[in-house]
Amino acid sequence: MTTATSMSSPSFADALLSPRAIALVGASGDARKNTARPLRFMRKHGYAGAIYPINAARPDILGERAYPSLAGLPGPVDHVFIMIPGDGVAALLPDCARAGARVVTVYSDGFGETGPDGLARQSDLVRQARELGLRLLGPNSIGLADLHAGCILSVNAAFEADTLLPGGIALVSQSGSMMGSLLSRAAARGFGFSKSVSVGNESDITVGEVVDALVDDPHSKVILLFLETLRDAPALARALGRARAAGKPVIAYKLGRSEQGDALAQSHTGALAGNDAAVDAFLKAHGVMRVQHLETLFEISPLAARYIRGPRVPGPDEALARVAVITTTGGGAATVVDNLGLRGLAAVAPPPEFVRMIAEHGLKIRETPVIDLTLAATSAQYKMLLEALLRADWCDAVLSVVGSSAQFHPGLAVQPLLEADKPDAKPLAVFLAPEAPESLALLQRGGIAAFRTPEACADALSVFFTPVGAPPDLGFEAAWPAGLPRSGMLSEYEAGALFRGLGVPVAQAQLIAPGALAHAVPYPVVAKVCSRDLAHKTEVGAVRVGIADAAALEKAVGEMLVAVRQRAPHAAVDGILVQPMEGRLIELILGYRYDPLVGPTVLLGAGGIAAELAPDYALRLAPVNLEEARRMILEVRQTRLIRGFRGLPEGDCEALARAIAAFSRLALMEGMRVEEAEINPLFVRADGVVAVDGLVRLA
Amino acid sequence: MTTATSMSSPSFADALLSPRAIALVGASGDARKNTARPLRFMRKHGYAGAIYPINAARPDILGERAYPSLAGLPGPVDHVFIMIPGDGVAALLPDCARAGARVVTVYSDGFGETGPDGLARQSDLVRQARELGLRLLGPNSIGLADLHAGCILSVNAAFEADTLLPGGIALVSQSGSMMGSLLSRAAARGFGFSKSVSVGNESDITVGEVVDALVDDPHSKVILLFLETLRDAPALARALGRARAAGKPVIAYKLGRSEQGDALAQSHTGALAGNDAAVDAFLKAHGVMRVQHLETLFEISPLAARYIRGPRVPGPDEALARVAVITTTGGGAATVVDNLGLRGLAAVAPPPEFVRMIAEHGLKIRETPVIDLTLAATSAQYKMLLEALLRADWCDAVLSVVGSSAQFHPGLAVQPLLEADKPDAKPLAVFLAPEAPESLALLQRGGIAAFRTPEACADALSVFFTPVGAPPDLGFEAAWPAGLPRSGMLSEYEAGALFRGLGVPVAQAQLIAPGALAHAVPYPVVAKVCSRDLAHKTEVGAVRVGIADAAALEKAVGEMLVAVRQRAPHAAVDGILVQPMEGRLIELILGYRYDPLVGPTVLLGAGGIAAELAPDYALRLAPVNLEEARRMILEVRQTRLIRGFRGLPEGDCEALARAIAAFSRLALMEGMRVEEAEINPLFVRADGVVAVDGLVRLA
Repeated sequence: MTTATSMSSPSFADALLSPRAIALVGASGDARKNTARPLRFMRKHGYAGAIYPINAARPDILGERAYPSLAGLPGPVDHVFIMIPGDGVAALLPDCARAGARVVTVYSDGFGETGPDGLARQSDLVRQARELGLRLLGPNSIGLADLHAGCILSVNAAFEADTLLPGGIALVSQSGSMMGSLLSRAAARGFGFSKSVSVGNESDITVGEVVDALVDDPHSKVILLFLETLRDAPALARALGRARAAGKPVIAYKLGRSEQGDALAQSHTGALAGNDAAVDAFLKAHGVMRVQHLETLFEISPLAARYIRGPRVPGPDEALARVAVITTTGGGAATVVDNLGLRGLAAVAPPPEFVRMIAEHGLKIRETPVIDLTLAATSAQYKMLLEALLRADWCDAVLSVVGSSAQFHPGLAVQPLLEADKPDAKPLAVFLAPEAPESLALLQRGGIAAFRTPEACADALSVFFTPVGAPPDLGFEAAWPAGLPRSGMLSEYEAGALFRGLGVPVAQAQLIAPGALAHAVPYPVVAKVCSRDLAHKTEVGAVRVGIADAAALEKAVGEMLVAVRQRAPHAAVDGILVQPMEGRLIELILGYRYDPLVGPTVLLGAGGIAAELAPDYALRLAPVNLEEARRMILEVRQTRLIRGFRGLPEGDCEALARAIAAFSRLALMEGMRVEEAEINPLFVRADGVVAVDGLVRLA
Repeated sequence: MTTATSMSSPSFADALLSPRAIALVGASGDARKNTARPLRFMRKHGYAGAIYPINAARPDILGERAYPSLAGLPGPVDHVFIMIPGDGVAALLPDCARAGARVVTVYSDGFGETGPDGLARQSDLVRQARELGLRLLGPNSIGLADLHAGCILSVNAAFEADTLLPGGIALVSQSGSMMGSLLSRAAARGFGFSKSVSVGNESDITVGEVVDALVDDPHSKVILLFLETLRDAPALARALGRARAAGKPVIAYKLGRSEQGDALAQSHTGALAGNDAAVDAFLKAHGVMRVQHLETLFEISPLAARYIRGPRVPGPDEALARVAVITTTGGGAATVVDNLGLRGLAAVAPPPEFVRMIAEHGLKIRETPVIDLTLAATSAQYKMLLEALLRADWCDAVLSVVGSSAQFHPGLAVQPLLEADKPDAKPLAVFLAPEAPESLALLQRGGIAAFRTPEACADALSVFFTPVGAPPDLGFEAAWPAGLPRSGMLSEYEAGALFRGLGVPVAQAQLIAPGALAHAVPYPVVAKVCSRDLAHKTEVGAVRVGIADAAALEKAVGEMLVAVRQRAPHAAVDGILVQPMEGRLIELILGYRYDPLVGPTVLLGAGGIAAELAPDYALRLAPVNLEEARRMILEVRQTRLIRGFRGLPEGDCEALARAIAAFSRLALMEGMRVEEAEINPLFVRADGVVAVDGLVRLA
């Protein structure tokens, strides 16, 4: 047995994405079989590296020499692609290592996606690989491809095409079949790809590590993600940070916008049950553009690749972006504008001075939100207007909607769009109203973002202008207050102390013994039974409000204790918590959760029962700074009631922002994991906020 | 001058849609010009009728004899298509009539779409046409086409194609350019059309009349509408009623889902400012399926043409439809299911007995909401499963999502779908995950609804299962109560009397003179200044609640009158209205409006300030019956609070439904038009409802 060492060892990223020599284990000699594809594909697409097909049954396949095993190959390999039944994979790993491989991609299935037994087999496989110095992609991965090198370690039929179109788009997919579907849809539109990677079960190499490798890949200018869940948020967060620093946009389509879609995406990959809202917050915080429509994922790439995203942060009641619209089809333009309106963007009319300036150049336009040129403009005038719009300060983007000329005179129709001098400062998006594949292709070749449907066009513009988030700053750690328990539930009194320590204003509260009711809180008061075992105090009769005097307090405490003994006999009672009656303009909920997928999150939500009827909350990765807290306040509809709504008194939004930021620092407790915490209600007043009740659950 | 009478006179519908002889006024001899197109198109597509090009400047055009004017044609015509500058159109009408035409389509622009002057010219044109017995399509119409007859009275470049694909779809569009765009998109997918009609400014012939004519057209099986507004709701309502009776589905894409889109669609056609919610209610009431995505408009047609829509009315908390999902791509299926979830439809898992039954036929499937056959099934097994699903009673529709085979083996991939025995009772929809034009075409030819995007697929299924509405029953008329004013505002007291007369429970109220405060209402009471001039009583200090006794009443009345004299000095005071204090579980708003586009509408909305933060209402054409009123209640989120929410006391929803139906009968007042009416608040209690305040504005 030879240990291959004659080649200098490649980096992990190169071995993964651009291997120089590969072995295909289980390569079939029957050209019709899936397992014959990688060899066929690589020969078709001109892979220049060494390929060693491994097939114990025959000396040659598809006219090439085959090897009986990984032992005794003529040279070392960087990457092994395994296509044999799953139960044979583990036994191959030592040979993979000895053959020099750094990465093994496992197409075989029957692992984590099948249930607990498969998951155990998968864990064993990963442990063994790690011990051998190997990294695993998959199992259950349909493979990966380096399109510039013609290296197709994949059974994906999408590479059956006679020629590939190498380009600047990298695709990472948690769904193997959707990788092929996206590649074929994009290829039909002339989008060129650099790399495509199906991560399969992500037993070892996760999306994050692949993205990290792509950041260093000079061919990859834009990174697309098809996501069903999130398996290693920290790794992805790091990679996204690097992508951001490198100026490589990352765009994601993620399943799970609806509850059933979320459940389905999780179950179908055997992933942990997740929470789309938390993943969404994660993606936003790390600068990922999440599209809503499948084809937007690739259609948006020219926009993302060329223009700086979201340079302008809109004010509280402003549109996400002001879009200048220029068209030869009023109805066609309206189909996009209608969708823009649904997504918070506004078509904006040119101001009088702009209209005058354009008139001086011989073109008459009107001060309407859609500039309709149906009859008026020559190609040169169209170009002139477009160039002026791309430089105007009253709009953030330009949308061109082209009518029938796009279908019948593609060259003429898109000429001004292609020829115009387009500064990188302002994005241009194009929608072609008719069926116009040629025009779409011309625009694509010209690097202009063009969309097949009005819905995808509006989706792309709105995603592009969604304000860029900021990743949470986890650099600081706070000490856990002395005297508080370090596991299980905290009592309301303890939770209050914890929150107060973080800087959240908490209602004055005195803990007294049931038998000695003296206290310093001015009447009227609220009295509650304080117990870490009572998460829902009201439901067991453990809260009384509006207590007028000492006699009433004594009566109330007696009744509460009877009620608690009856309804929650096992609750350990710490004492009676006495608080003053607090006033408020509105009440909100502050929530904290260590999300199993993305880690610490903070939520600001509407309080009261009406909020349960329609979701009204803002969710972020924790901790948040003041600026992010202010944006959360703007996102919660109910806070409009304290922000100058119909003459109602205004609430102290700055104090609220400070409370949110302080509360979110639960994420920074040194050596402690807070699983869940809640302030409910948080009263907002004209001169501050106050936490009136709260709970904390530790790991 | 000859008056042409030698041909039997065609019906209006035939003259409009299927003329036997036509004249083209302004036909150009320059083949490159738009105005040369109709003649070219008709020769290319084999129109068998007589064509008379009219061109005063030359004796022949495009090799055919041209005529100097409409006077002296060799035979009569049914339909004249006018393509000359707008200011010459009016002068042609007498000749059109003398030539035998019943319909004149005016391509010329410069009329209603340009502003008030153009609108005046347009009105003159219509008056003149009517006097001559002519009907007008347009002006500003891009024309119409009878694709089965090759009769192309249109300058639309979409007919430039070498062959047309006649079929069963009729398209009526308020946007000329979008007519072409839709035709080209649909044609590329193999959808065949019967008629296409651009209605232009709808000065005379409106969408309603065109739909009416299409109901009688044997070639038209499905009617598609591209709408920007509604111009003649009664005519369209009649036509939609006939379409429904004839079993011809009508599908609409309407601009205006967003506020700006609505405004834009209106302004761009010079139509009356409108209200999308009211138009939506109109479309639903008359059985129109309104799609959200542009391409769904034609993609849904095989579904609409073949299957009975919405046979099942879902219960209060049920999904709109239960969809069985069968796929070879889990990720691809999830992209549709995720969107279905957003639209209220649910993927449903097969029950154990179904799984057993399928196993007996040799196929193992799992009890999961997506039946994934990636590896398992043969074509015969797929067909067997599909046929079983289409007959199963636990699902309302079947969705098939096809993976890469649709791209690489179109024949094989769609074979089981085409060959399966498909009963008409249960709809089948197909989404192809990869780029798969051949498979799309095969399915289309097989009459199977297939969708290019997951979004459009979900859109179609959700629209298909949206419960079918019922048009309002306007058969009955009620007399206007004697003693009430017949114009202007009613006072609150009078409004109360009107509502009470219709059967709405109204709070007991006694109108007393400010100087004589004796009354029979038990204390505590509410007192209000009663005046038809005070629409917003609270804001001028004209309401006092919780008045405990006669002394307090006297004081309150004095103060209110001072306040009203100061803040609304011109208000005529009818007296003081005294009401008992009423209790309630929740408060709602009942609104009535004579909508300028669709006529009487009734609205049930959430009350209180929270409702202003997020829309929460149900809108219908008025009057509504009890069944429709019950559905409105279910649509208003806030009513969940009185429908068994978290142990809260339940409200009297039947009394509420009766009140809605009674209030909506404001639409039936004989000889009177109520412009606007409102009950705000309407209190809902455990044992009934009561209107506490209200206003009425008459025409």
